[in-house]
Amino acid sequence: MTLPMRILGLDPGLRTTGWGVIDVQGSNLSHVDHGIVTSKDQETLSSRLHSLYIQLTEIILHYNPHEAAVEETFVNKNPLSALKLGAARGVVLLAPAQAGLTVGEYSANKVKKSVVGVGHADKAQVAMMVGRLLPKSRGVTNDAADALAVAICHAHHRSFHQKIKAMS
Amino acid sequence: MTLPMRILGLDPGLRTTGWGVIDVQGSNLSHVDHGIVTSKDQETLSSRLHSLYIQLTEIILHYNPHEAAVEETFVNKNPLSALKLGAARGVVLLAPAQAGLTVGEYSANKVKKSVVGVGHADKAQVAMMVGRLLPKSRGVTNDAADALAVAICHAHHRSFHQKIKAMS
Repeated sequence: MTLPMRILGLDPGLRTTGWGVIDVQGSNLSHVDHGIVTSKDQETLSSRLHSLYIQLTEIILHYNPHEAAVEETFVNKNPLSALKLGAARGVVLLAPAQAGLTVGEYSANKVKKSVVGVGHADKAQVAMMVGRLLPKSRGVTNDAADALAVAICHAHHRSFHQKIKAMS
Repeated sequence: MTLPMRILGLDPGLRTTGWGVIDVQGSNLSHVDHGIVTSKDQETLSSRLHSLYIQLTEIILHYNPHEAAVEETFVNKNPLSALKLGAARGVVLLAPAQAGLTVGEYSANKVKKSVVGVGHADKAQVAMMVGRLLPKSRGVTNDAADALAVAICHAHHRSFHQKIKAMS
């Protein structure tokens, strides 16, 4: 019997970053915890990123995950919005790397396909399927549901790669 | 006589981030050091950001600046490029904040206006004026010249704000 693997999923945003922790043992997934970290609009970008980093580092120290997975947020907005969201994503990718975790990145479509079965699912469908796969997480906000979804996606891709490795 | 204020200027980029350190005493500026930190294209985004963070943190510990200034890179590119550059900028803003420094942000136009006198100056003009203002820095690469330029811009704005404060 293999020991459970703990995965931290992260859905980056400057105002709200969702996080979710799951344990994976073979094909069994179990919900550990989830939540959001926020930063205040009125602070400087540098202070907001710093606050995001501190909060994420605390979550990593508290739950001690083995690996992390981050949603590759795609934005069809203007370059300035993308630059701000990109700054938040930079910090969200850095925090687990700084703690020594390997970090997987998955596009929103890949996450949806992995959880709902189709790449064009909406947020409500993702939250519903996350609730089915992880019954203890029911009623989570969309941000945290997306974070749990990226953790589930990482678990699926991980086990797939392990099977390929075992076969070769 | 006031003690010199040491400023770290940073020009963010994922492949190359320029840095420059200057000392400011009254209206005198002096060059301390400058350089670039780089990350490898073939590594994951998370590893590149981690490497950027580690190198910047080492520079901060080595030169021990009092304040930092970062150029607000504007990109007129597609959102995906902006997202990558944004991630680098996030880490470049975070590293000094994490070290307890206040961090100023200046648009490229403000930096050029402060150093060359006009907002539409090209990179070569910026490098030439940086060389005049800081003779020891002559022959620097454009990335490091831009970083020294943002440090000079911060020095000008800082002293302006202190004068305003003294008058009020």
